[in-house]
Amino acid sequence: MHVPAQRGGPVDSSHRSRLVDTCARIAASRPFEITIVAIILANGVVLGLETYPNLGMAGSALHALEWFFRTVFVIEIAIRLLAYGRRPQDFFRHGWNVFDFLVIVAIFVPALHGDSALLRIVRVLRMVRLVRFSPGLRTIVAALWRSLPGIGGFFALAVVTLYVYGMAGWLIFKDVYPEDYGDIGRSLLTLFVLLSLETLPDLIEDGMAFSPWTVLYYASFVVITVNLLLNILIAVFVNSMEEARRLEMTEGLASGYDEDGDGVPDELDRIAISQRLDDLRTLIVELERELRIDRDDGRLRRTGKD
Amino acid sequence: MHVPAQRGGPVDSSHRSRLVDTCARIAASRPFEITIVAIILANGVVLGLETYPNLGMAGSALHALEWFFRTVFVIEIAIRLLAYGRRPQDFFRHGWNVFDFLVIVAIFVPALHGDSALLRIVRVLRMVRLVRFSPGLRTIVAALWRSLPGIGGFFALAVVTLYVYGMAGWLIFKDVYPEDYGDIGRSLLTLFVLLSLETLPDLIEDGMAFSPWTVLYYASFVVITVNLLLNILIAVFVNSMEEARRLEMTEGLASGYDEDGDGVPDELDRIAISQRLDDLRTLIVELERELRIDRDDGRLRRTGKD
Amino acid sequence: MHVPAQRGGPVDSSHRSRLVDTCARIAASRPFEITIVAIILANGVVLGLETYPNLGMAGSALHALEWFFRTVFVIEIAIRLLAYGRRPQDFFRHGWNVFDFLVIVAIFVPALHGDSALLRIVRVLRMVRLVRFSPGLRTIVAALWRSLPGIGGFFALAVVTLYVYGMAGWLIFKDVYPEDYGDIGRSLLTLFVLLSLETLPDLIEDGMAFSPWTVLYYASFVVITVNLLLNILIAVFVNSMEEARRLEMTEGLASGYDEDGDGVPDELDRIAISQRLDDLRTLIVELERELRIDRDDGRLRRTGKD
Amino acid sequence: MHVPAQRGGPVDSSHRSRLVDTCARIAASRPFEITIVAIILANGVVLGLETYPNLGMAGSALHALEWFFRTVFVIEIAIRLLAYGRRPQDFFRHGWNVFDFLVIVAIFVPALHGDSALLRIVRVLRMVRLVRFSPGLRTIVAALWRSLPGIGGFFALAVVTLYVYGMAGWLIFKDVYPEDYGDIGRSLLTLFVLLSLETLPDLIEDGMAFSPWTVLYYASFVVITVNLLLNILIAVFVNSMEEARRLEMTEGLASGYDEDGDGVPDELDRIAISQRLDDLRTLIVELERELRIDRDDGRLRRTGKD
Repeated sequence: MHVPAQRGGPVDSSHRSRLVDTCARIAASRPFEITIVAIILANGVVLGLETYPNLGMAGSALHALEWFFRTVFVIEIAIRLLAYGRRPQDFFRHGWNVFDFLVIVAIFVPALHGDSALLRIVRVLRMVRLVRFSPGLRTIVAALWRSLPGIGGFFALAVVTLYVYGMAGWLIFKDVYPEDYGDIGRSLLTLFVLLSLETLPDLIEDGMAFSPWTVLYYASFVVITVNLLLNILIAVFVNSMEEARRLEMTEGLASGYDEDGDGVPDELDRIAISQRLDDLRTLIVELERELRIDRDDGRLRRTGKD
Repeated sequence: MHVPAQRGGPVDSSHRSRLVDTCARIAASRPFEITIVAIILANGVVLGLETYPNLGMAGSALHALEWFFRTVFVIEIAIRLLAYGRRPQDFFRHGWNVFDFLVIVAIFVPALHGDSALLRIVRVLRMVRLVRFSPGLRTIVAALWRSLPGIGGFFALAVVTLYVYGMAGWLIFKDVYPEDYGDIGRSLLTLFVLLSLETLPDLIEDGMAFSPWTVLYYASFVVITVNLLLNILIAVFVNSMEEARRLEMTEGLASGYDEDGDGVPDELDRIAISQRLDDLRTLIVELERELRIDRDDGRLRRTGKD
Repeated sequence: MHVPAQRGGPVDSSHRSRLVDTCARIAASRPFEITIVAIILANGVVLGLETYPNLGMAGSALHALEWFFRTVFVIEIAIRLLAYGRRPQDFFRHGWNVFDFLVIVAIFVPALHGDSALLRIVRVLRMVRLVRFSPGLRTIVAALWRSLPGIGGFFALAVVTLYVYGMAGWLIFKDVYPEDYGDIGRSLLTLFVLLSLETLPDLIEDGMAFSPWTVLYYASFVVITVNLLLNILIAVFVNSMEEARRLEMTEGLASGYDEDGDGVPDELDRIAISQRLDDLRTLIVELERELRIDRDDGRLRRTGKD
Repeated sequence: MHVPAQRGGPVDSSHRSRLVDTCARIAASRPFEITIVAIILANGVVLGLETYPNLGMAGSALHALEWFFRTVFVIEIAIRLLAYGRRPQDFFRHGWNVFDFLVIVAIFVPALHGDSALLRIVRVLRMVRLVRFSPGLRTIVAALWRSLPGIGGFFALAVVTLYVYGMAGWLIFKDVYPEDYGDIGRSLLTLFVLLSLETLPDLIEDGMAFSPWTVLYYASFVVITVNLLLNILIAVFVNSMEEARRLEMTEGLASGYDEDGDGVPDELDRIAISQRLDDLRTLIVELERELRIDRDDGRLRRTGKD
């Protein structure tokens, strides 16, 4: 009945060294998590301050802080890796752990030394690690991610529509407006920007100067794509809300096992459980249907007896 | 228990020639479908590349590819037509088949030879054929299409509103802004573009210069039409979602029969089935209502006996 | 079992003259309705054509048509009034009838003769009469109308927010941008136009030039009002959809009585019926609740006996 | 069964002086409320009129009115405070009472005398007091307020996304467009304004001039953030609607106690009640589930007997 590590570390605890034990306890502790979140936030602030020119003295202080952050993050990842004991490969089975490892280890790659742009991007990506520490954010990201297949159809339809209109735009305007419709690339860019409706008045005016019929081209494009886009946006919302609700609903049920500190496999389990629950509900509805017919029969027979 | 053609071909198989048999098997096969989809996509890429000027050698290669695509598409349509054996008229009973036939056969029309714009449009329309090969896209298009009657009322209301405001705009501004409101056509165009809200600041400024009361004209127009448009967009979404869910729900039930490779009549059947299901559900609810009153009576009587 | 007038006329038929009888039959007939709708549409087209200058011959033809439309509309209203026989006051009990009467009778007002702007507006308003002839449009307009009280709260909140921000904007910017914020009127207009987000980049740039803190003013305004506006728009939609569904649901029940050809009182009755239905449903749910507890008791007792 | 003060005053009535009694009765009376609302509205109109320059005589009249409003508001707050009798601390337990007190008492702070900007802001904030007098507005504000935690996740995600894109924008554009992306502050402002999509065409054009790959930066930013923002907006709406419905549903139940004239604690109670109701419903559903299985068993056994 003893749960050694509530979250963040593997609990398969036979024959672990004291170091592994300690690391697992630290990795699962709340203060450890809060410290790391605070340091990621401080890192973000430092990154922001570094963008201002003429820092002088403060510049070297920020540089020193960056080395402090690097040290902390390396220690953090080492603790979390050691917590997995003799099975470090388990650490890499969770997406967020892999992301953390890559983002932190990147500083050891010689090609990234100095002040290269790639290193800066890696440092900015550390901010994304905030998501893994907030269960709420993790659920939203997982829900949004899993809602994508559901809108794939709408998205493909939008791409086909954009491409067909891009070709048609090139056919109509290639000679009069080569700047906007000179080739399929420019056509697609013009129409993509038109999706924001910002360029609609100018494009319609240009089109009217060429031929009044072009208003049909723009009107149909705007009506169809705005419609599709809104459908996509609302579908993403509805799907992700459903996924999030499902994840939240099953959170209570799944809390007893599969604790691994990264959240993703937990959620996969939750999905499985919630689907089993859904199946049960369907069965109950079917049962109920049969029951009702049966009870109705019974009622009739009983009424007949009276 | 043997199902000769799972999808894409007629299954009325008595007295078919070997050719028809082979064609039906090919038309229903997965590799055939994947090949055609790949070639439609390649065709799209070629169409895109052709829009770039100064192609030189590549230009003639693209031209050769176009002839290859034409040959493949003609063979495709021939196989699918032959698969219907002695009843080719059945082929034309499905909307997507008719669309395919027209788009592919158009290249044989002499008037479209050479490099005419109409031929190019026909070639672009081939891209739309992608929709018929994806069950997801087909469901979405069918659902969007069938949700249109449901929003007809909102749309008619929007048109009446636009027309009344167009006339009012002409009455107010015809002398001061003939460019924007000179006749009903310009009025309607100005107001249609205003729906994107892009021209609102300029139009209100112009209106204020003429009379401060015109702000009421623009404010009421924007509030009413934005409201109506959002209603239309959300209504389309809700309707199409319901239709899509209904189609998906009944997909499992309808999978045993009416396989015809185009999807549309299948879906009509599904609608019929789902409506029958809805009727059943209504009946059950009514039954349940009666049951409850009855059981309540029974309970009272039984309680009386105790 | 004989229904003399299915829609459009009063059916209280004791002691009616032949003329009243005939008028009631005409007013309720489908061809009459279709004719009027066609003439309203033709009237709309004529109004549109009249906006084009240099009509020449066509101009006098349109003028003749206008007189034809007037005659038809006067005859229409006369028939519908006569259909009410000795109780013409009943005709005016329905909103749409009053609207029709005012719009058509206006041509007899001497002050509107000639080509005055007011007469033109009255002629444009005739187009709105299309709504009363379409049950769908009538339902939507009635639903939208009845959904307004439900959003009154959001709307009042938006007005208070706009006013408070208008006053704050005047306090902040009255000296630097008198053009935009010189008095409360200009402030409110600037902020109303800002609701379309079109002027956001310019206003923020102006604000930044004055003080970087003004970005808080604009950011909070945009976030709060866009939020409120979207809430209003979706609330209108949800309310009107619910009202429309309720109206449609009860349409079948209410079809046997209260036929008066204008639709509004019918719908009020429908609302009443649907509310009674809702009450019934609540009662049933309560009954069911008691039943379940009772049955559960029964089950326990019965189980005890076993 | 006697309810001395239906709303607006404490009802703990043992040993109250006559003054307290009278004040409680006044504070709870409908005319008192209507008078205050009318005076707040008049105050708003006066504040608006004061923004117009060159008022002359009217200016001093408005000044006099301001003193009248101040007197009325001080009397109002005094009456409501006195209504709490010997426990004035109870008055300050409700958020709206504290707000009222601060806004009205501020005029006695010497630092705010004269025509300072802060005093004007305080005077504008008096308008917000309208909310506390309308149960509808109070419910909406409470519902919107309580729906905020539910969208915290989305909001945090949007902030992280904006910050990461801001850093990336600075890395990409800091040298070519220092005006827009010179430091993290400018970057964030540029991207915040881009959320309105107004500056999209210009920014994409600038980006294309620098490198065609920047279109990926803008396209991904727009797609991700517009998606997140719409999710936030709809989530706020759905949450607040649910809260509002819950508040309204339980309003009838909670009307018998906890009347305190400010609305907030009432609503907290309502939430508690509605949650108990939700628990009950869950229990009933579980009961029903067991019942169905039981009844099904019973049916089978009974059928076996027949």
